[in-house]
Amino acid sequence: MTLGIGVVGAGYWGPNLVRNFRSSPDWDLVAVCDLDEAKARRVIGDRSTIEVETSLERLLARDDIDAVAIATPAQTHSPIALAALQAGKHVLVEKPLADSHPVGAQMVQVADQHDLVLMTDHTFCYTPVVQRIGELIADGVLGEILFIDSVRINLGLIQPDVNVFWDLAPHDLSILDYVLPGGLRPVSVGAQGADPLGAGNVCVGYLTMPLPGGAIAHVHVNWLSPTKIRQMVIGGSRQTLVWDDLNPQQRLSLYDRGVDLHSVSADATERARAQVSYRLGDMHAPTLPEREALAIMAGEFAAAINEKRAPRTDGRAGLRVLEVLEAADRSLAEGGALVPVESTVLTTGGAS
Amino acid sequence: MTLGIGVVGAGYWGPNLVRNFRSSPDWDLVAVCDLDEAKARRVIGDRSTIEVETSLERLLARDDIDAVAIATPAQTHSPIALAALQAGKHVLVEKPLADSHPVGAQMVQVADQHDLVLMTDHTFCYTPVVQRIGELIADGVLGEILFIDSVRINLGLIQPDVNVFWDLAPHDLSILDYVLPGGLRPVSVGAQGADPLGAGNVCVGYLTMPLPGGAIAHVHVNWLSPTKIRQMVIGGSRQTLVWDDLNPQQRLSLYDRGVDLHSVSADATERARAQVSYRLGDMHAPTLPEREALAIMAGEFAAAINEKRAPRTDGRAGLRVLEVLEAADRSLAEGGALVPVESTVLTTGGAS
Amino acid sequence: MTLGIGVVGAGYWGPNLVRNFRSSPDWDLVAVCDLDEAKARRVIGDRSTIEVETSLERLLARDDIDAVAIATPAQTHSPIALAALQAGKHVLVEKPLADSHPVGAQMVQVADQHDLVLMTDHTFCYTPVVQRIGELIADGVLGEILFIDSVRINLGLIQPDVNVFWDLAPHDLSILDYVLPGGLRPVSVGAQGADPLGAGNVCVGYLTMPLPGGAIAHVHVNWLSPTKIRQMVIGGSRQTLVWDDLNPQQRLSLYDRGVDLHSVSADATERARAQVSYRLGDMHAPTLPEREALAIMAGEFAAAINEKRAPRTDGRAGLRVLEVLEAADRSLAEGGALVPVESTVLTTGGAS
Amino acid sequence: MTLGIGVVGAGYWGPNLVRNFRSSPDWDLVAVCDLDEAKARRVIGDRSTIEVETSLERLLARDDIDAVAIATPAQTHSPIALAALQAGKHVLVEKPLADSHPVGAQMVQVADQHDLVLMTDHTFCYTPVVQRIGELIADGVLGEILFIDSVRINLGLIQPDVNVFWDLAPHDLSILDYVLPGGLRPVSVGAQGADPLGAGNVCVGYLTMPLPGGAIAHVHVNWLSPTKIRQMVIGGSRQTLVWDDLNPQQRLSLYDRGVDLHSVSADATERARAQVSYRLGDMHAPTLPEREALAIMAGEFAAAINEKRAPRTDGRAGLRVLEVLEAADRSLAEGGALVPVESTVLTTGGAS
Repeated sequence: MTLGIGVVGAGYWGPNLVRNFRSSPDWDLVAVCDLDEAKARRVIGDRSTIEVETSLERLLARDDIDAVAIATPAQTHSPIALAALQAGKHVLVEKPLADSHPVGAQMVQVADQHDLVLMTDHTFCYTPVVQRIGELIADGVLGEILFIDSVRINLGLIQPDVNVFWDLAPHDLSILDYVLPGGLRPVSVGAQGADPLGAGNVCVGYLTMPLPGGAIAHVHVNWLSPTKIRQMVIGGSRQTLVWDDLNPQQRLSLYDRGVDLHSVSADATERARAQVSYRLGDMHAPTLPEREALAIMAGEFAAAINEKRAPRTDGRAGLRVLEVLEAADRSLAEGGALVPVESTVLTTGGAS
Repeated sequence: MTLGIGVVGAGYWGPNLVRNFRSSPDWDLVAVCDLDEAKARRVIGDRSTIEVETSLERLLARDDIDAVAIATPAQTHSPIALAALQAGKHVLVEKPLADSHPVGAQMVQVADQHDLVLMTDHTFCYTPVVQRIGELIADGVLGEILFIDSVRINLGLIQPDVNVFWDLAPHDLSILDYVLPGGLRPVSVGAQGADPLGAGNVCVGYLTMPLPGGAIAHVHVNWLSPTKIRQMVIGGSRQTLVWDDLNPQQRLSLYDRGVDLHSVSADATERARAQVSYRLGDMHAPTLPEREALAIMAGEFAAAINEKRAPRTDGRAGLRVLEVLEAADRSLAEGGALVPVESTVLTTGGAS
Repeated sequence: MTLGIGVVGAGYWGPNLVRNFRSSPDWDLVAVCDLDEAKARRVIGDRSTIEVETSLERLLARDDIDAVAIATPAQTHSPIALAALQAGKHVLVEKPLADSHPVGAQMVQVADQHDLVLMTDHTFCYTPVVQRIGELIADGVLGEILFIDSVRINLGLIQPDVNVFWDLAPHDLSILDYVLPGGLRPVSVGAQGADPLGAGNVCVGYLTMPLPGGAIAHVHVNWLSPTKIRQMVIGGSRQTLVWDDLNPQQRLSLYDRGVDLHSVSADATERARAQVSYRLGDMHAPTLPEREALAIMAGEFAAAINEKRAPRTDGRAGLRVLEVLEAADRSLAEGGALVPVESTVLTTGGAS
Repeated sequence: MTLGIGVVGAGYWGPNLVRNFRSSPDWDLVAVCDLDEAKARRVIGDRSTIEVETSLERLLARDDIDAVAIATPAQTHSPIALAALQAGKHVLVEKPLADSHPVGAQMVQVADQHDLVLMTDHTFCYTPVVQRIGELIADGVLGEILFIDSVRINLGLIQPDVNVFWDLAPHDLSILDYVLPGGLRPVSVGAQGADPLGAGNVCVGYLTMPLPGGAIAHVHVNWLSPTKIRQMVIGGSRQTLVWDDLNPQQRLSLYDRGVDLHSVSADATERARAQVSYRLGDMHAPTLPEREALAIMAGEFAAAINEKRAPRTDGRAGLRVLEVLEAADRSLAEGGALVPVESTVLTTGGAS
């Protein structure tokens, strides 16, 4: 059964949602809502009967709409989502879920109360590469996770209201939350950063997250580099994985040699050999299908609604990301020391 | 004039020193000294009149030796170097200079007192790529330095007596000391790490170093990855430099767009453009000569002796590296918070 | 002024044309024409007022259509295009222009007679990288062209009716035609190939094309490789250009050292140096805008119609490609020897 | 048992031979022979008892020499080798074996008559990557060979006396001879080339070699490119291999999907999928040991002498390379058409 959807916000991300819901077999894109009617109409294009709404109230009053997808600035996510949930609509929210954890927690609770799906648009989690990484970890191919190192640097526009953690790290954190069994639940969070241009916010930032069991995750986000690097290394006891997102021909590489304590050796010969060799195990690069992440996400949103279950990136996933971001802000304020994550215990249940 | 040299230690690094001093036009390799005579003889090879000494005392007593190059375990650097300096020999020491800062400081002082050259074998500083990076920074091509990010990961042998910082970070720190005008003098040092295998020492480590003026340097060293990454990004206000040491055809790339505050903008259109474009400025990859770093280093050692001056990587450079390593150990012990660097004020002067 | 267009053929390539004409500011996509109505409707999608026509006759009879874009099998290009031209419509044809040179020549003549634009959809010519290559050659940056080497290999579906030259080489040949001043006019053509699987057609093919002035162009097309290579090297007397189309971060590299006769030397030292160095001149990688080629092509089609001029890839460009393909078939039949290109002298003029 | 060797020629390649024979456990490097005594002495270096000979006659008269390695210009290979063989010495000759096929055939015959080892220094065949490729083909991992494409371009010094085929193609041809079961025995050879600078010799050349069974081998050699490409693709019915020699971290890649006739399909959907996907099968990059090819070659030379057998790259391998080079010259003279290879039938036997 096709579900009706309305997209709220015709700015930066909205057009991507419009394009994908429009071509999804699961959805009927009924309307695009923006205060700026001309903007909304441009996104829809000519020769289309998709409707334009300039009032959220009118959009939410429509009977032919089952769900809304919100692509507006972060601080408006909460009021729009709450209104939609109270109008009985399922809700998809662009990342981050909200601009603060308490506000996000309220969204999750209201969705639970109304038995509606609340989904966070953690787009990257629906790329074929992240889905494969999730499978590899779940299947034990990597063995025990020892370390995770994620780098996401590229020239971003320095934003007046948020630091680089809030702008870029949600990508890395939501990916970690998706691929780690049980989600991202660091023991503590350390954050260090710099604002060398005096822009008023941290532009280069480092997150350190000790994980339960002794592993460590680390994220480097950076607005100041004119060249992009988007690379994640996940080291396991059996294999190590390198994801280079800017190498479309070989995004994912698996090195079939892990590390164990037997390699503790002071033998000079073995040491010499290790240092002149470029790689010590074979490498395997699995083929990945070419599919657009947003299309898969649109399908997951519909499936969660139809199957009355929480989607893979539900509101709680969005909350876990907010918890780490808020801990990072605290660590930053305290000079970089590790601080605990304050996890809100929400009653499990509902579809959010 | 050719100088006579003796190499002390025929283990892991010694053979590299032997090969380079042997073929250097500046040096006459007179003898190799090791307690294990057969080992020393194997390094020299057949049909050679280079001599083998099994006693340091006899080596230092020789008149045909002007200098010694020490390639023994770190904890023995100091006694051997002090004996050599007291015997009137110039000294080259494999990195790290010593196993602690006070001991290293003593080596510098004794060299100063005897007016002898004390050089740290910071080999990487003599690679054509690091030399070029030093020139680019000195010439102002990068503009003001905003951030430095260095990654050095590869399967190393987990060592029983030192953590990954002491094993791998001297490379990164000595390079930073070489290319930064005035040397590496961080405001403070933060260190975080993990020992997920329970090896007894940190195997994955992160160093954060706020620099004077607001910039930040960060180093990631890692023993647990079966694939090597050796990459340094130096972001400047005018250009950004990427050094990928494992790409011999394009080690050094310069992106001719830096960042300034004018790019602070909330304009959605410009933001969209920035995010779909892979790179916003042209890239330039200078040709680098192919020369062996150790050969250049051997030349610099001879030149410093002949010109009665300090070499580029003198004992004080080795000391600055030790200061950061010791600060890292303190930060690690204190849970990762930033700690100040305790800089020993040594009277400037001498040739060390 | 917006022009009305109808797309003929809803198969493999048609949807790409539909998507681009639909979003082009220059065009109003009025209708999609296919014998299979359901297929055409699927391409258009829901909530659209774009019309479906199942009769070419009815499509061509419409007053609101100024032009048609033909994306049907090659052997049907000519009858459809001729009907459209006779109905007074401008015509865009998917590559190759036609399945034989005489038939293509007739299309050009009829377009000339009716003063209509006939354009070949040489899509690659409208990619930012090919446009930049054209500018670099036109501006003399490369100097005199010495050699061109193009490789286009990837697993293709072996086709029952054409060999690999007709399937893949039109890309390379149309690009050469676009970037070479005066178009692609080889002195002769040699073609060699193999059909190692016994598929009935050459699946691995090599084209050699001596160019006027002593340069040489060479094209390798290959259906049998499971890994893609799409690389073109253009060597000039001043600079050499490498285009690696599968490296989105560095598609275009310019090496600022060419070759001249002064490097003729038997000196062993210089020779040794040349062979150990990876590259002898700096490299420069210009930024390229990210734009979809088909969108630019749609704009050029409209501009040619509005300005009553021939488009950049007109019917004559399509004919030059056909001339080389037919010469390749003759060379293949004659055992690989170089054969002359039979160029049809068409009166210059018109807009095709 | 250690064998005594003398190296003849202290020019470009000689020092590499000296370095490797000097450190080989199988060999005792007794003397270096060159008309220029100072040059020979420079290659040996100081503090060495390796002797210098300026007379070939005296060198060959020595009892402590079992073999000679010849690294002189190609036209002198034959007289030096014949003199050495007649003096009872085993012979290693730098590639190409000789400057013409008849002269090379005489060398093979004389070696046979004296029951001495005649080896061609096809260095590349002893690299770990070529050895692995040979194993992969021998083990049937690739299946039936369908095509081989080799590219070797880099700025070379244009040579007054030979064309680019004689300078660079011996590398490719000797590698093909090594990895193909039964050696390189093409049905015919086609050669096309250009001399766009008017240097007097072909500087850009293409070799086409139909192989028995319908496969095809193709070699592109080029002196005029300032950037190096050294790449070989070997397509098989089961897997395809890509060797990129300038990517030390991933020299060898195996794509586990080959091609068969079942993929002949006109189905548009499958076709579309094939064309948007970057790769259709997983990729596997085997680890290769890091060993110097010349060291392995020195070992093979000693083993062949000790085991009284032909070495892997014997004189006959050198002859097969000469046969193709001479056929290429004939094809070039005849306008590029395929010409048969004139194979000299030498009685099999002996150790050459």
